[in-house]
Amino acid sequence: MSMMPALADADLSAEAAAVFADIRATRKTDFVNNFWRVLAHDPVALKRTWESVRQVMAPGALDPLTKELIYVAVSMANSCEYCIRSHTAAARTKGMSDEQFMELVSIVAMASETNRMALSLQVPVDEAFKQV
Amino acid sequence: MSMMPALADADLSAEAAAVFADIRATRKTDFVNNFWRVLAHDPVALKRTWESVRQVMAPGALDPLTKELIYVAVSMANSCEYCIRSHTAAARTKGMSDEQFMELVSIVAMASETNRMALSLQVPVDEAFKQV
Amino acid sequence: MSMMPALADADLSAEAAAVFADIRATRKTDFVNNFWRVLAHDPVALKRTWESVRQVMAPGALDPLTKELIYVAVSMANSCEYCIRSHTAAARTKGMSDEQFMELVSIVAMASETNRMALSLQVPVDEAFKQV
Amino acid sequence: MSMMPALADADLSAEAAAVFADIRATRKTDFVNNFWRVLAHDPVALKRTWESVRQVMAPGALDPLTKELIYVAVSMANSCEYCIRSHTAAARTKGMSDEQFMELVSIVAMASETNRMALSLQVPVDEAFKQV
Amino acid sequence: MSMMPALADADLSAEAAAVFADIRATRKTDFVNNFWRVLAHDPVALKRTWESVRQVMAPGALDPLTKELIYVAVSMANSCEYCIRSHTAAARTKGMSDEQFMELVSIVAMASETNRMALSLQVPVDEAFKQV
Amino acid sequence: MSMMPALADADLSAEAAAVFADIRATRKTDFVNNFWRVLAHDPVALKRTWESVRQVMAPGALDPLTKELIYVAVSMANSCEYCIRSHTAAARTKGMSDEQFMELVSIVAMASETNRMALSLQVPVDEAFKQV
Repeated sequence: MSMMPALADADLSAEAAAVFADIRATRKTDFVNNFWRVLAHDPVALKRTWESVRQVMAPGALDPLTKELIYVAVSMANSCEYCIRSHTAAARTKGMSDEQFMELVSIVAMASETNRMALSLQVPVDEAFKQV
Repeated sequence: MSMMPALADADLSAEAAAVFADIRATRKTDFVNNFWRVLAHDPVALKRTWESVRQVMAPGALDPLTKELIYVAVSMANSCEYCIRSHTAAARTKGMSDEQFMELVSIVAMASETNRMALSLQVPVDEAFKQV
Repeated sequence: MSMMPALADADLSAEAAAVFADIRATRKTDFVNNFWRVLAHDPVALKRTWESVRQVMAPGALDPLTKELIYVAVSMANSCEYCIRSHTAAARTKGMSDEQFMELVSIVAMASETNRMALSLQVPVDEAFKQV
Repeated sequence: MSMMPALADADLSAEAAAVFADIRATRKTDFVNNFWRVLAHDPVALKRTWESVRQVMAPGALDPLTKELIYVAVSMANSCEYCIRSHTAAARTKGMSDEQFMELVSIVAMASETNRMALSLQVPVDEAFKQV
Repeated sequence: MSMMPALADADLSAEAAAVFADIRATRKTDFVNNFWRVLAHDPVALKRTWESVRQVMAPGALDPLTKELIYVAVSMANSCEYCIRSHTAAARTKGMSDEQFMELVSIVAMASETNRMALSLQVPVDEAFKQV
Repeated sequence: MSMMPALADADLSAEAAAVFADIRATRKTDFVNNFWRVLAHDPVALKRTWESVRQVMAPGALDPLTKELIYVAVSMANSCEYCIRSHTAAARTKGMSDEQFMELVSIVAMASETNRMALSLQVPVDEAFKQV
């Protein structure tokens, strides 16, 4: 049960309904997932967040699948089940295979291990890495 | 200052020296960074960690640059300066541009924002996302 | 299912029962929530934690609603569902509106995004911010 | 040293310069802090982030000081030194006293303690807290 | 529901089956828990992870119960329910009492509180602590 | 530089001075570290925190070194440099060897890796682990 109920289409404010229309047009599907339905209680936040996500995830210097894999990786690092599941579904749509998913999990886990080692041992940054 | 001093080559145990030789051969450079020099106080951990990283980061279903970008993204999510800097340097070597780096930062930050929204609002997972 | 069962009033030690009496007197309600019922397995920890929370959350330089909003914000940042729900309920009692709750979520999420950007980019602290 | 150098005004793109002009006009000061100067390498991210922060932090159902205190609290929970310092400076400008700051620290720390207890003991959510 | 289905013995690859045989022989039980059954989709990751865990948790300078308590403590700090439960079960097998478990919870929570205070207040490291 | 200056003995309030006297008597040393000197700006928080730490870390069902190792492990998981260094110093005083410290680091890091795997794969808790 969410902190605020997921809104059905009939319960949306005009501003929220406009955002839902854009979500549907952009994604070419009638389905709007719960994240947006709960956030719709604050139409200003809904609009800002949707437009920001759309901008950040648009094709750019990184290709769409790579962007989605990074989104899933961060969601894993932040232990967000909702986000892991929704962005894994998006990555599947963009072509992610089972093998790629399992490799992603190994990288996320291995990075977590060596991150923790470097932090626990307080390893000083090498001069060579300061000239990025 | 690290919790244990970074070891110079002359101070390595035989087992640690063998790992350093493999790091140098694999990376085709004489440079061995501080992470391994501090971890060398525990040669068993050094060997296990190096071999695990080498295995996870080897070319597979995901290409080397994508793997490195995911490693950097997790290091950012975990706030590990050492790891951000060392793996950004590795990603640069594998071809990452400034524009790709800045896009990576935006994705990591945007994912952190929507992760936090989903968790704060306790959004229930949609049925559609349970059939992964 | 908790790691240790929630204790009913009849199963409390004398020391735990005394703490429950103080919780009831302070909150002016007979209801004692599960957090205290599980923690009651360690009466010393129960007493220490209750007295600490009562002291920290007492009216001071910050008003009770502001304190509760901060408590919810930290619980959101720590992804603690139990704490988000229990302290949101407390904030409701102290007058928090739906609109205030949704603004809180946006601030927590936006801070998470810019925190992650500052950490990912390793932005140096401006001199102006060092003279706090 | 940041991952990308902080840009001086003379090095800004036209789009970034326009954002800086808005930051200066909104804040009524010529000072633009390093966060924006580093982010300026990606003018699109700069514009999106600035406009989002401005919107979220504008007066609303919560007053400006309360919003800033919540921002600082989340920055503390996320261990972001840059953000703790910059938003504490902002809170000072909005009237935060030393006593209020110290109370904030105690709430953030106490919430971290009880969050960890609830998560460690896997305390089940009370029925009473599900009817938010 | 896991992201990839837990594999039954009949569905294991030869390499995964060999790891399961080692898990059973090492633990002297036929029971293999879900963690390994899900990870078995990537036999290389399964083998690497199992061998690493076995090595790290083998008796050494720290005794097996102390090692297990530390594993549980980190799992609590990382909010991993699966790991808290599975390693608490392991600690029980190694002799952990209810009283020891509750003390563990208090230490984890108290450390979380003082960690957050030190980070929030940006306390500088004393010279005396730099000579470790 | 801390958010509030570390207080010298001469600048303490009477209540803070009394806590410092207890710290010195308990630890049998005149040295009082920066954590308490910064926290002393809020004498009530200083007293509460010191008394809580003293109670939690007193000998109990777990021995003092084990308690200290758990404290360091959590500090590592929370990336708190101040806390890693101060509690490692305390663990040294209680007899921790270099070998034990390096084993601690490996357990913390390995737990971080498998925690992340279990969370990323959303592994369901086995029935066997629910009967703790």
